Amino acid sequence: MSKYFSQKYKSLVPYVPGEQPKDNDYIKLNTNESPYPPSEKAVKLAGEYAKKLHLYPDPTCGELVKQLSEMLGVGKDQVLLTNGSDEILNFAFMAYCDDKTPAVFPEITYGFYKVFAQINNLPYEEIPLNEDFTINVEDYIGVNKTVFIANPNAPTGIALPLSDIERIVSSNPDNVVVIDEAYVDFGCESAVALVDKYPNLLVTQTFSKSRSMAGARLGFGIGSKELIADLNAVKYSTNPYNINSMTMAAGIGCLSDDEYTKANCLEIQKNREYTKAELEKLGFTCTDSKTNFIFAKSDSKTGEEIYQKLRENGILVRHFSDKKIADYNRITIGSREQMEKLVSTLSNILR
Amino acid sequence: MSKYFSQKYKSLVPYVPGEQPKDNDYIKLNTNESPYPPSEKAVKLAGEYAKKLHLYPDPTCGELVKQLSEMLGVGKDQVLLTNGSDEILNFAFMAYCDDKTPAVFPEITYGFYKVFAQINNLPYEEIPLNEDFTINVEDYIGVNKTVFIANPNAPTGIALPLSDIERIVSSNPDNVVVIDEAYVDFGCESAVALVDKYPNLLVTQTFSKSRSMAGARLGFGIGSKELIADLNAVKYSTNPYNINSMTMAAGIGCLSDDEYTKANCLEIQKNREYTKAELEKLGFTCTDSKTNFIFAKSDSKTGEEIYQKLRENGILVRHFSDKKIADYNRITIGSREQMEKLVSTLSNILR
Repeated sequence: MSKYFSQKYKSLVPYVPGEQPKDNDYIKLNTNESPYPPSEKAVKLAGEYAKKLHLYPDPTCGELVKQLSEMLGVGKDQVLLTNGSDEILNFAFMAYCDDKTPAVFPEITYGFYKVFAQINNLPYEEIPLNEDFTINVEDYIGVNKTVFIANPNAPTGIALPLSDIERIVSSNPDNVVVIDEAYVDFGCESAVALVDKYPNLLVTQTFSKSRSMAGARLGFGIGSKELIADLNAVKYSTNPYNINSMTMAAGIGCLSDDEYTKANCLEIQKNREYTKAELEKLGFTCTDSKTNFIFAKSDSKTGEEIYQKLRENGILVRHFSDKKIADYNRITIGSREQMEKLVSTLSNILR
Repeated sequence: MSKYFSQKYKSLVPYVPGEQPKDNDYIKLNTNESPYPPSEKAVKLAGEYAKKLHLYPDPTCGELVKQLSEMLGVGKDQVLLTNGSDEILNFAFMAYCDDKTPAVFPEITYGFYKVFAQINNLPYEEIPLNEDFTINVEDYIGVNKTVFIANPNAPTGIALPLSDIERIVSSNPDNVVVIDEAYVDFGCESAVALVDKYPNLLVTQTFSKSRSMAGARLGFGIGSKELIADLNAVKYSTNPYNINSMTMAAGIGCLSDDEYTKANCLEIQKNREYTKAELEKLGFTCTDSKTNFIFAKSDSKTGEEIYQKLRENGILVRHFSDKKIADYNRITIGSREQMEKLVSTLSNILR
């Protein structure tokens, strides 16, 4: 850091993304990428827009907003596209938290919430999970703070039923409740169905996981038109052209091929249940994940040991040093072939 | 706006981008886009990476940083890529301004500086230009604030010589000086040559204008490795995967075709001088622009009238309502054919 760096950031701890090794020798099960390539329609349309890069993209993302809002059954003024869902989460911290309105989120959740609070100099409170890693819904009833809940939660993979989400949202009418649904397409109920009923509900989703577009950086928020207007004000005050034209085109192509997305999501759910059953045979405890990853603890080796041994055997998974979850590893669901390789490798490691 | 929107933004006035009409019936000379398509090498490489969108991009932009640093003659740890240069400018406001360190910039300049200060709740000071729209360098000598100067300036197009930039940088050793070189490739000296001499100098550039990649959203900063480390801390606390993989690929392709970029820049400079000469014959006063636009005032019609009449005739230019520059229009330099059309249309309007 330089001597010029503002003192307001003196305790900032930036987010650390999962490893992205340069070589291709690893089976990468550490960043929750899809094992399936993007829709051919996405690839084709992105390639066509690459030829027109000398022109600015449409800052309103008009066509993509139209298609997405039709698919979701909401108004065009109820959707905002962002540069990955990280961007809309950051916008929500900026728009809905301040010295008088702290953020609140689970102690074990997407590690970036804490960083968003820190970079914006916002007060925040972390609420411990139950012993079994479930969220204690009562902790968020009438909490009088801006609530951020990942549903399903990460890295636990555990989902709250929509009825619990609704209880949290309805009990906090004076505060925004953000439901981060990055993994919602792998078997969890979406809160999008509630946005017309609750003006304080913001739902965020992403094209990164279920839609095989992590490389494109495309996320979005759905909420009342008033919330979306707030977030647009933040967007137009930070980066009006936040979505490049190739990503916008890829998003449009992807939405026109929704059967492909749905088929991939089903395949990943099947592979998840297969992997979970196989790991349990090897003595692992797994949470009830509704995502494209499992969260697993061995009965004989530490989480760190499992991580290291897999790495030595060419398989990358994600291990978190936080001692409350250090026994576990987060393992992305890849193709069936990759999962079979994972199972046989773990079997050898534990022999 | 919703009732939930933080009061800290109650006086926020978001940036308004230039018009992006949906139809293609206009000659668009209003957003400083290049009239030339992107390099074929950029298009090709972007298309190849579209096929791998299911994988996250390299958050370090390793290959692009390597090529860019070699081209610029600086270390790899002296370059940071961002989602357009707007993003790195925002990062610089965040990193180098706070309650004790206000921002300072010209009163007439890129309209976003003021918005960046507002969205980050930062104090700022605007310094009037001289009557002829030049920057009074003395105003910035030892100013003891974080300095933001667009060089060449926008929308005036006027450049400061490098010796003046150096005087400003060297006289403010305790503050960062940001030189925004969005338009530097059209005939102005870059301050990149000074970054190894001054640890307080940050230079920002973009692929949007000279490199025909406005649609890709790719900007970058060059500075001491300590400044780049600061800005990386901000990046990894807001959006680690800020550059999508297609844009990264297009950037690499573009840099491998630098002759194409240079030829286009020369062509635009020729067209600029042609257009300026023709407009002067029609009674316009033009600043001495070193950019890909001219800033022109008619001796017989208001700026608003010129803007409207051109619009009625299918040509979009940019008019700013600020009364100090309301007599002028900012006119992007397009192809020779487009410029000839502009001249003949203006000739008819003024007849």
